[in-house]
Amino acid sequence: MPDKSKITAKVAVSLAAAILLYVSVGFGAPAAISSDQATLERNFDALIHPDDLRDWMKLLAAEPNHVSSPHDKTNADQILAWFKEWGWDAHIETFWVLYPKPISETLELVGPKKFAATLQEPPIPGDSSATATDPALPAYVDYQRDGDVTAELVYVNYGMLDDYKMLQRLGVSVKGKIVIARYGGGWRGLKPKLAYDHGAIGCIIYSDPAQDGYSIDETYPAGPMRPPQGVQRGSVLDMGLYPGDPLTPDIGATKDAKRLRMSDAPTIMKIPTLPISYGDAQVFLAALTGSVAPPGWRGGLPITYRVGPGPALVHLAVKSDWRQQPIYDVIAMMKGSTWPDQWVVRGNHHDGWVFGATDPLSGQVALLAEAKAFGGLARQGWQPKRTIVYTSWDAEEPMLLGSTEWAEKHASELRKRVVLYINSDSNERGFLGVGGSQDFQHLVNQVAADVIDPETGVPIGDRLRAKMRIAALAPTATEHVWTEAKIASDPDKDFPIEALGSGSDFSAFLDHLGVPVLDVGFYEEGHSGGVYHSRYDTFEHHSRFVDPGFVYDAMLAKTIGRIVMRVADADLPVQNASAFASAVADYLDQVKKLADDEREEAESQAKLLHDHAFQLAADPTRSSGLPTALDRVPHLEFAPLEDAVDRLKRSAKTYDDALAKNSSHLTNSQIARVQALMMNIDQTLAPEAGLPGRSWYKNLIYAPGRYTGYEAKTLPGVREAIEDRRWSDANRYAKLTADALNAYSDRLNAATTVLNGS
Amino acid sequence: MPDKSKITAKVAVSLAAAILLYVSVGFGAPAAISSDQATLERNFDALIHPDDLRDWMKLLAAEPNHVSSPHDKTNADQILAWFKEWGWDAHIETFWVLYPKPISETLELVGPKKFAATLQEPPIPGDSSATATDPALPAYVDYQRDGDVTAELVYVNYGMLDDYKMLQRLGVSVKGKIVIARYGGGWRGLKPKLAYDHGAIGCIIYSDPAQDGYSIDETYPAGPMRPPQGVQRGSVLDMGLYPGDPLTPDIGATKDAKRLRMSDAPTIMKIPTLPISYGDAQVFLAALTGSVAPPGWRGGLPITYRVGPGPALVHLAVKSDWRQQPIYDVIAMMKGSTWPDQWVVRGNHHDGWVFGATDPLSGQVALLAEAKAFGGLARQGWQPKRTIVYTSWDAEEPMLLGSTEWAEKHASELRKRVVLYINSDSNERGFLGVGGSQDFQHLVNQVAADVIDPETGVPIGDRLRAKMRIAALAPTATEHVWTEAKIASDPDKDFPIEALGSGSDFSAFLDHLGVPVLDVGFYEEGHSGGVYHSRYDTFEHHSRFVDPGFVYDAMLAKTIGRIVMRVADADLPVQNASAFASAVADYLDQVKKLADDEREEAESQAKLLHDHAFQLAADPTRSSGLPTALDRVPHLEFAPLEDAVDRLKRSAKTYDDALAKNSSHLTNSQIARVQALMMNIDQTLAPEAGLPGRSWYKNLIYAPGRYTGYEAKTLPGVREAIEDRRWSDANRYAKLTADALNAYSDRLNAATTVLNGS
Repeated sequence: MPDKSKITAKVAVSLAAAILLYVSVGFGAPAAISSDQATLERNFDALIHPDDLRDWMKLLAAEPNHVSSPHDKTNADQILAWFKEWGWDAHIETFWVLYPKPISETLELVGPKKFAATLQEPPIPGDSSATATDPALPAYVDYQRDGDVTAELVYVNYGMLDDYKMLQRLGVSVKGKIVIARYGGGWRGLKPKLAYDHGAIGCIIYSDPAQDGYSIDETYPAGPMRPPQGVQRGSVLDMGLYPGDPLTPDIGATKDAKRLRMSDAPTIMKIPTLPISYGDAQVFLAALTGSVAPPGWRGGLPITYRVGPGPALVHLAVKSDWRQQPIYDVIAMMKGSTWPDQWVVRGNHHDGWVFGATDPLSGQVALLAEAKAFGGLARQGWQPKRTIVYTSWDAEEPMLLGSTEWAEKHASELRKRVVLYINSDSNERGFLGVGGSQDFQHLVNQVAADVIDPETGVPIGDRLRAKMRIAALAPTATEHVWTEAKIASDPDKDFPIEALGSGSDFSAFLDHLGVPVLDVGFYEEGHSGGVYHSRYDTFEHHSRFVDPGFVYDAMLAKTIGRIVMRVADADLPVQNASAFASAVADYLDQVKKLADDEREEAESQAKLLHDHAFQLAADPTRSSGLPTALDRVPHLEFAPLEDAVDRLKRSAKTYDDALAKNSSHLTNSQIARVQALMMNIDQTLAPEAGLPGRSWYKNLIYAPGRYTGYEAKTLPGVREAIEDRRWSDANRYAKLTADALNAYSDRLNAATTVLNGS
Repeated sequence: MPDKSKITAKVAVSLAAAILLYVSVGFGAPAAISSDQATLERNFDALIHPDDLRDWMKLLAAEPNHVSSPHDKTNADQILAWFKEWGWDAHIETFWVLYPKPISETLELVGPKKFAATLQEPPIPGDSSATATDPALPAYVDYQRDGDVTAELVYVNYGMLDDYKMLQRLGVSVKGKIVIARYGGGWRGLKPKLAYDHGAIGCIIYSDPAQDGYSIDETYPAGPMRPPQGVQRGSVLDMGLYPGDPLTPDIGATKDAKRLRMSDAPTIMKIPTLPISYGDAQVFLAALTGSVAPPGWRGGLPITYRVGPGPALVHLAVKSDWRQQPIYDVIAMMKGSTWPDQWVVRGNHHDGWVFGATDPLSGQVALLAEAKAFGGLARQGWQPKRTIVYTSWDAEEPMLLGSTEWAEKHASELRKRVVLYINSDSNERGFLGVGGSQDFQHLVNQVAADVIDPETGVPIGDRLRAKMRIAALAPTATEHVWTEAKIASDPDKDFPIEALGSGSDFSAFLDHLGVPVLDVGFYEEGHSGGVYHSRYDTFEHHSRFVDPGFVYDAMLAKTIGRIVMRVADADLPVQNASAFASAVADYLDQVKKLADDEREEAESQAKLLHDHAFQLAADPTRSSGLPTALDRVPHLEFAPLEDAVDRLKRSAKTYDDALAKNSSHLTNSQIARVQALMMNIDQTLAPEAGLPGRSWYKNLIYAPGRYTGYEAKTLPGVREAIEDRRWSDANRYAKLTADALNAYSDRLNAATTVLNGS
């Protein structure tokens, strides 16, 4: 591979040619890899065949493969067999988890007119939905609470906290009601949770066509989007508290593990909940009267969205078989030659909601392609310096059970050994998307400079930079988007990777163990969201719309394969400390701005309330109460955190400089000491205490939002305390987070001392 | 009336009481009016009876009253009779204008399947649409071009300039096609104009439910919004060039006026055009394939919006009777006692599209209420010091014909005599809305402090301020909204009034004659937009939804009546020069920022093009060409304009100070000299030259946008030159506008000299 940093932009001779030209828009001037490494990666690529991926997906997605289905077990066995065939030391590790299998579901409008929701997705000719022999799961969400309720209906938009604030202003209470929420705006499980918190006794969640139906593109099978009877299944386990088996928080759900009683399990939702299609939802929504829904609450159905309550009267009943079920994680190892006790772990789940072609099998077949290629390289004589551990998780869909139980069971070993966990999940045609620990941002940029995008002929990193720059032209672009665009247009800077919260199997590693992670995939052009968690996420849909030719699934393997190889074989730590320090400094700025903005908002609201501006600006013929008065925002004790961030920036710079200057003339003993200091440095960020009220989450830099879902909240102990107006928590966690960052800096400083020759 | 500036906020004892309490949020500390004036205004109010307004509207809206209909003439005669009955010196002034009466309209889908658009609005039981005996106009737009065309269909979103830029990127040409555009995004007439400019041969305009149908609220008769078969009629005369009779630009369309040949009339649209309902439009739109419409192009119909072209094949044919028709302006005068040659002119049109209940009769009945009340005051012995002229215009809907022809015919007299023209049009429940010449902004604030809003019990100005402040809380609030909110929350500042472009009968006065105007109405809570220009804008709709009880229509009369009386009776000019100077300074800032933004955009786009970012960020399976390269934006010669604005600010301040200081001890001769200098000072802003390419528009401060429609472009000679990249025009008009402002300052300075005792 040529040294990309020396290539300058070539003059385009024609538009058509230009697109295929290699265009150097820069990528943080990544260091050239050695010619040995380049050869190894070329050999690796040569072992990746899109046809393999297609064949594997076709087989794995032939029948429904949700947890407890026969095909899920068949797939685990098949994956195990492949690993063994390719020379890996592999086994299945089984856990026993509480898993509710649906027995019966009822959802009907009982007044003013009668209507029964279909709760089934009809087969589509030419699609696996028409050829499979095993039945699909009905419309269902895991870990809702069984029950049988009848009540008036209330439309709650996305069912998020802001929506309940609006309902209060509209004078609508959900107490004793059944709510109907549309998908979007935040994580699914928050909808029944917040509904229950506000007094509702049942919850319906539907897919609005504005989110993923005909408003976006033609519906399947004419196009990729959700057809009128498509349903999004999912988990509503209260993962903000902890993911994994609800009966075994913090420990692996082995056969004989000590378990909570089901009635004590805090993560099981409190009210019956069902997901429905927009074909069904339209009937329920059209039966509502009451306030017209505020502008931001209106979806794509051809009706006037109204809030209710009623007169629509709804009967909702769910019954499930709550038993322990075995789940099957496939674990495969390739031992390292030099540092066998340092592990690079790679994972993707294998369970789906129905056929699971895109989610999760597109990522699974990429993982298999990597595993097969590493087997091939091994047969050619290569052995990684570090141990590579490939994992195919079960039960991700019910809420990360396979990966969480494994991580909990092996926690102390993993904390000691794992250098990096690399995750993937759904994958599609489009742009590189990477989230994770920013100390690996520079590595990602280096790899992204060496993988060529098949649609444009330029490195995937360059294509991503172009996307970031063009995104800033949108009229809706935020300041965050502008900042990204500015960075992306500077070839001397690394493009940023996103902070992670939850939503896939990296969570236990990042959030609970404090192990650094990367989550990698391609996205956007395949419109896989249109069949997300539905019966139509099939091999046929994936092949036609999501990744025709399995080109991007294969490219995912090439991308992650490089990350695995470079981390596995690097003599010195691949972390770039300054990237992390800079990200944390940015997070601190955001948190301080949040406090200032909240303070200003409270002051401004107080003036508006004092002047009766809300009443005067309201239409008295429509319900519009006052907003709840915001309490005053005190000035917070940010100083320790500010000092810690300043120190981190200094420590990071001296460490990175020392590494760059001295890397070529270190003794083996020095290398070993630096490795020992750096390989689990991220665990300084995840002290035992954890976050307030949810101590499973130990990472003080990244966490999923308690009231937003999967999306990351950075510096969560401080940020969420401000959002929730827990001022003493905010001050306490500013100090705890500062302590964690100082511990991180201490490690960096110790490593710097070694690098500088002590 | 008490001096409002001395009242402080009272403590609210309860929420219910608070809303009804008088709350002083301030209103620019308006000066107290004299007790005589307060008595006069109380007497005026006592003569306004909502029942009168209801009865008049019921009579005037009983039958279709569009231009050339029998009922339009009946209404003119009736209005004349009322004026005479109330003691006014009134007559009808008739003009003869080219007016196309529809003979036949055809719109059908001829392939791939057949469908004929209904082009009619069915009657609704209980509504005038079911009881009228005269036929309504069919779906029709005035001054389209007759023709008979068949071609493939292309969806062009709003059909504005930016939409054509997007079409170019999508690789779609409208050449030889028929376009379908949705209402919104800019003025109706630009849709066929820009379609023709881009090569289209026909144009369909439809009302999308996202704009004014079920997406907003229930449809008529269940609610106020547009039902599926509702059609928005309107004019597509190219008013950006000049409004009024297309055959008599600049002169009154008297019987023997010199006329253009119809074939030479530049304002008649070039292609056949029809408006349709969303019930009909859905069939045409669903028949399109091609690119999926970009996100901002998607409306509220339950389909995937696609662009085409075709395969939908459309046949569009329109035939009209192009003859001269008489139109009937009712002109009524009440002579001034002291300065009979100084006129306060007040107008509202009387022609509608069908029944015209809200548009225009809600404003018309307010005007009649004022006229009746002035008649009553006159019988009580009052006589205005200045002459009051009340006008009831005909043919506003086809494009301001009645007012424009009258203003053109009497131009020199009006330029000499009119102190202020006050317009109204549609009116509804809600908030005060005022646009116009900012030198009258302080007067508006004074009046708004003295009229009490019936829904909240506070002055209408206070309610408007509350609205402006609450608007700033919306996530979509712009910088303009924030600025307004800041001003509105400061009781020492006047709330701002909006600059005017066109769209109602003030245009000829403001844009052509350079006479200051105010356009006054209440808006927002009545949802009158749902039946705008349709057969359902009826007495029943207005009474049920738009202004139940005719409370706000009566309040419009009280508001405008006060403006008329205060301007008619003031010894000294009521203008506040600083408000105007401050507005112009703001406009100059905007224009300079526009040039800077355009420059920056061109530079940024050049970099993106150079780096092929558009291609790299695009999905190669979807059409997405490059944007047209923007040419470099030179630095413009703003200096003369900057100097002129600085001088204006200084002159305005010294004038306002001198007026405040010396107003009580001026001689009659001094008053006469100040009046003479100030009463037509605004005409300094409208020199003969006019705007480039459209010299009918003479005002260099305000104009409707050539490519946006009714909305105001301030400093239009400069602003539009920048937008259109006519750099030499920009420099030339910066100078011309500076000259105009300097002439204005000269007048101010001369008046100041008189006020200071020379």
